[in-house]
Amino acid sequence: MSDWTDCLDFGVSIAKQASETVLAAFLLQKEVQLKSSPADLVTETDQRVERILISAIRARFPLHRFIGEESVAAGEPCVLTDEPTWIIDPIDGTVNFVHRFPFVAISIAFTVNKQTEFGIVYSCVEDKLFHAQRGRGAFLNGEKLQASGQEDVSKCVVVTEIGAERDDLALSTMTSNILRLLQLPVHGVRALGTAAVDMCHVATGGADAYYHIGMHCWDIAASAIIVQEAGGVVMDTDGSDFDMMSRRVIAASSTSVANSIAQVVQAFPCRRDDEDPTRCVCGAAGVKGV
Amino acid sequence: MSDWTDCLDFGVSIAKQASETVLAAFLLQKEVQLKSSPADLVTETDQRVERILISAIRARFPLHRFIGEESVAAGEPCVLTDEPTWIIDPIDGTVNFVHRFPFVAISIAFTVNKQTEFGIVYSCVEDKLFHAQRGRGAFLNGEKLQASGQEDVSKCVVVTEIGAERDDLALSTMTSNILRLLQLPVHGVRALGTAAVDMCHVATGGADAYYHIGMHCWDIAASAIIVQEAGGVVMDTDGSDFDMMSRRVIAASSTSVANSIAQVVQAFPCRRDDEDPTRCVCGAAGVKGV
Repeated sequence: MSDWTDCLDFGVSIAKQASETVLAAFLLQKEVQLKSSPADLVTETDQRVERILISAIRARFPLHRFIGEESVAAGEPCVLTDEPTWIIDPIDGTVNFVHRFPFVAISIAFTVNKQTEFGIVYSCVEDKLFHAQRGRGAFLNGEKLQASGQEDVSKCVVVTEIGAERDDLALSTMTSNILRLLQLPVHGVRALGTAAVDMCHVATGGADAYYHIGMHCWDIAASAIIVQEAGGVVMDTDGSDFDMMSRRVIAASSTSVANSIAQVVQAFPCRRDDEDPTRCVCGAAGVKGV
Repeated sequence: MSDWTDCLDFGVSIAKQASETVLAAFLLQKEVQLKSSPADLVTETDQRVERILISAIRARFPLHRFIGEESVAAGEPCVLTDEPTWIIDPIDGTVNFVHRFPFVAISIAFTVNKQTEFGIVYSCVEDKLFHAQRGRGAFLNGEKLQASGQEDVSKCVVVTEIGAERDDLALSTMTSNILRLLQLPVHGVRALGTAAVDMCHVATGGADAYYHIGMHCWDIAASAIIVQEAGGVVMDTDGSDFDMMSRRVIAASSTSVANSIAQVVQAFPCRRDDEDPTRCVCGAAGVKGV
């Protein structure tokens, strides 16, 4: 089981199975609960899909660990260990799901010794299944993906998201980041409302870069390996190595484009996903001067 | 021919036919020319698809008039008369088309006595055909559409675009508009890179509003009637009646949401589509105080 292909195959099959629950609920009116902000929504379907995924994986691989968006929201720890770990977002794009904006994804990453072995992003309404396995390439519905290779940021389509952090500093930083990008210039800025799918567009070559500040590890762990296996790069928005717990990511067609974006994008304080929630976030690491 | 259904049926059939040219070119490397800014692109395919559409319509309806994006760029007048007129965008989302970001549309509106009789938006890669005929409803691939009816802007998903106007005033106005919207708050902001398709999402109910400043009549004439026939509203960003030549539009689920957006969105000077291009644009009508 050293290459974890049986886990990947199982992950793909349960993602497809769980998507039936997502699709059955997609067109219905939803009961919505708020989490951290008026834009951080959760529905009963998010929680149900996560339970379906985790219970199926646990039955098959009883020793594996989990980091799941809704489990963490319910108080489970969010700490990556060396043990085989499934990182799950049952519905990436919950706001889209609530509104029936047709981009919602099941995102599943799998890590061993803190290294991602594979990632699966299933955009359910579009019926687009992205996956990548370490060293074996990235695929969309079985077709091999290749990032654009673009080196010139001024010719890039850049995808980003506002996300759920909505305090004044976060909002003004995010919108001024968009302004600075446009002034580089870039060809355009896009936002589909799901980090996982947005980032997979970098793997397809349809977009040249994605950046985000404030997302969580379950939003981007799977799509990060999909971008890397398609020949793209991922890094922190401060230019350092990618750290899925840091709440900051740039995914790009080339190191040159990633660096150009890192130079203009500014961060705002975000508590790390694996930080003790009782600690103060003021002056959090990684916040760049404005 | 008083209800123009034969023109609508012909428009649908030629949109589908012309989409074969778009799709055949979609995955190829394109030769790109710049128009008004580094983000205002045109390819040989845009020009070819417009020629295919206009020559087919002219052969069938020799007395009809045309306003086409690429014809206007080549110096044809952009004036709406009382004559039956086809308003054509051969590829809405040319930047997406060049990058293979999979949202590109053929947009066709038809007006008589300056009133829109029908609109067709064909999102070619997604194979989604939106259409509406005055008084007869709006449809996506034959299924009737209904806007969300949302009245509360703070529960809205809002779609917008930066577009091709890239001077400093335009960019700072557009990004500060996004900031003010987020502060209302709204649930989220999205951008697919094609005004025509973005706006059709308001007709599906998947988004609750769309606004744009700086687009052209061919980008939104078809989707405006699609939104209206789905029960949505369209107006100018200054709150006045919709004017497809004004370069400003809000499409929304309700008048209440449209008004809330009109209150926070500020415009920047844009020459009207039907204005004499030799006249100065400084102090153009409709620019609101900041």
